[in-house]
Amino acid sequence: MKAEIIAVGTELLLGDILNTNAQFLSKELAALGVEVYHQTVIGDNEDRLLDAFKEAFKRCDMVITSGGLGPTQDDITKEIAAKFLGKELTLNEEALKDIENYFNITGRKMSESNKKQAYFPKEDIILKNNNGTAPGAIMKGKNGEIIIVLPGPPREIIPMFKEGVVPFLKTITDSTLYSKVIRLFGIGESSMAEEIKDILESRNNPTVAPYAKEMDVTLRITAKAKDEEEARDIIKPVENKIKERLGEYIYGEGEDTLEEVVARKLLQKRLTIAVAESCTGGMIASKLVNYPGVSEVFMEGVVTYSNKSKVENLGVKVETLEKYGAVSEETAREMAEGIVKKAGVDIGISSTGIAGPDGGTEEKPVGLVYIGICIRGKSMVKKLNIPGNRERVRARTTMEALNWVRLELNKL
Amino acid sequence: MKAEIIAVGTELLLGDILNTNAQFLSKELAALGVEVYHQTVIGDNEDRLLDAFKEAFKRCDMVITSGGLGPTQDDITKEIAAKFLGKELTLNEEALKDIENYFNITGRKMSESNKKQAYFPKEDIILKNNNGTAPGAIMKGKNGEIIIVLPGPPREIIPMFKEGVVPFLKTITDSTLYSKVIRLFGIGESSMAEEIKDILESRNNPTVAPYAKEMDVTLRITAKAKDEEEARDIIKPVENKIKERLGEYIYGEGEDTLEEVVARKLLQKRLTIAVAESCTGGMIASKLVNYPGVSEVFMEGVVTYSNKSKVENLGVKVETLEKYGAVSEETAREMAEGIVKKAGVDIGISSTGIAGPDGGTEEKPVGLVYIGICIRGKSMVKKLNIPGNRERVRARTTMEALNWVRLELNKL
Repeated sequence: MKAEIIAVGTELLLGDILNTNAQFLSKELAALGVEVYHQTVIGDNEDRLLDAFKEAFKRCDMVITSGGLGPTQDDITKEIAAKFLGKELTLNEEALKDIENYFNITGRKMSESNKKQAYFPKEDIILKNNNGTAPGAIMKGKNGEIIIVLPGPPREIIPMFKEGVVPFLKTITDSTLYSKVIRLFGIGESSMAEEIKDILESRNNPTVAPYAKEMDVTLRITAKAKDEEEARDIIKPVENKIKERLGEYIYGEGEDTLEEVVARKLLQKRLTIAVAESCTGGMIASKLVNYPGVSEVFMEGVVTYSNKSKVENLGVKVETLEKYGAVSEETAREMAEGIVKKAGVDIGISSTGIAGPDGGTEEKPVGLVYIGICIRGKSMVKKLNIPGNRERVRARTTMEALNWVRLELNKL
Repeated sequence: MKAEIIAVGTELLLGDILNTNAQFLSKELAALGVEVYHQTVIGDNEDRLLDAFKEAFKRCDMVITSGGLGPTQDDITKEIAAKFLGKELTLNEEALKDIENYFNITGRKMSESNKKQAYFPKEDIILKNNNGTAPGAIMKGKNGEIIIVLPGPPREIIPMFKEGVVPFLKTITDSTLYSKVIRLFGIGESSMAEEIKDILESRNNPTVAPYAKEMDVTLRITAKAKDEEEARDIIKPVENKIKERLGEYIYGEGEDTLEEVVARKLLQKRLTIAVAESCTGGMIASKLVNYPGVSEVFMEGVVTYSNKSKVENLGVKVETLEKYGAVSEETAREMAEGIVKKAGVDIGISSTGIAGPDGGTEEKPVGLVYIGICIRGKSMVKKLNIPGNRERVRARTTMEALNWVRLELNKL
């Protein structure tokens, strides 16, 4: 089965937004064993979009589009797809109800133009949109052509693809590519590649591919097999070999996030935590709170960005701040110990650093960060030098703090 | 002048990497007044790439490629471009010297295969690569076709485009496109479109295009003119008309973010702020802290995720929590008032809500959020129903809170 991806939107052609949908769709289709030889981007233009469908179907069996399902006159993807397949659009009462419902829930007023989003060919499959107003659709043509129209915003297209399109595609493909992703933190891509050079080079079934993300590194092990079970058997021995060599860096699998792993471990071990943040300014707490159910172990967070609030909230000594400064090992330690005392928890974490762009000195440059951890009465401090801009320094500090908690929890 | 972008690389079709080059090139070309109606991605395949050139030149005058200039057999972009234009590749001594030089500087050994990267059509312009081994080229065909081949890695293509391609393109284009972006929050794309329907439909010079982002909405006003000054004059009256109609929703321009705008206003007005967060769990504080220099006005944040910490840190009454619950107007109000008192600030913000996925009831469904604000002794609460998953509920609450502060600051 061959598919092509057509992303529709003048904003893509102007470079206003990045075509992340093409990457998402390509990755998903590869995993399903669907071959993709072309991705195209077209503006909101009837003739060019119609031509794009014509060209694509000279080469493939299925086209997946993203974007152009909105309520405005500019949004034409569904209309042109129907035109290409010789289909008529009629008002679908259920889709209309869903859209009305979406407006009710969000407390916004539905405008007349949104009705346009409820028009579909009678005989086709409509894909519900729980995260926006535009339903998608799977349209089938007389000669077996399939056009799947999906909305543009990532938070709409991703769930719609996973919930609506994947089940459909599984019914029409026969071999499957199955991948397992291993997530690592604290090792660079090239060091990792060196550790498992032989595995990366073997390029058999399964293949192993490393990817460096903004903050962490992942390894994707991909097997081709007739079904998921066979694929898992092919993956297992290679996965074990990787775990033997890189074990300590591996924090999770698949869609795991570091904060999720930490929150799960805390819940498992029934250990409570509280956070005292200076340079991260709430980011560590915010990450932890993203895990549902974390309220059982996450007791409280304080953002003590000023010296005054470090003293008042955490009992950091004025002398410590005067002698060593707010960004120091001593302050980080007192912050971690202070939050443990204040919140009456098992584990306290603290952060203090110079996130930049200003405020750096020769002795204490931008990127200098101290992370404190106080765990069952024992306190430790880690000193880091993080390159990059303010956002990166803060985000990296957050990840380093969470990873440290993970490693300490493993020891308990 | 019409151009198309062809990105070459199987890794793009597998979704292994994101096509940031297409965005970069599109943005640059738009700024130069070059129209781009198609972006394409093709794998490392001779026939398909040749077909892509054929298709493209039915529609345009110039094709810019990225990727496929490496030393391996897989890298075929330059070869196929030359084949399409009927040109022969010969060894270019100067290019070879540059490549040898690059290897010398970086202390790596040049392999025999890198020689391939020094072959070019005799008559064409070679683009130096100071950040990698692959030179690019500007090739001209007999019928006026232009193919510009550029390397794939962003750190190579970006400087090569700016240093080598922009000067060339300026010699063959005469007008420029200049855009101004206006950022709005608190209005949906369709409502916004209705408010300025006449402006959107006029489609003259300047054009106005709406885009919905994850959380906010933007309007891009684009003028075609001989220079930036003339473009600004064309944009001004339309911009003013939009501001008249949508003023209250407009929070910024260009790359402004909501937190930046709020932080700047607080600094301007010398008003201090503190944050008490439940469902947002540190996200509001974290956004504010992202603005350098905010320490002068941002006094502290508390993440009072548990009832206990709401009572202990903020003085929320136990009776309030028992009678109305943690997610209630009353609790939000007491949280905002509590943080003002605790931190001794001018403005306090609070959030409490049900972020999901669990914890919702019929009376208090997932997505129910209260935001409290206490400003110079006056406290107010806003009730919201936010659709979507946990992360979205929290992120949206954060933005709503910041936007509310913005609006209140405007009144002072």
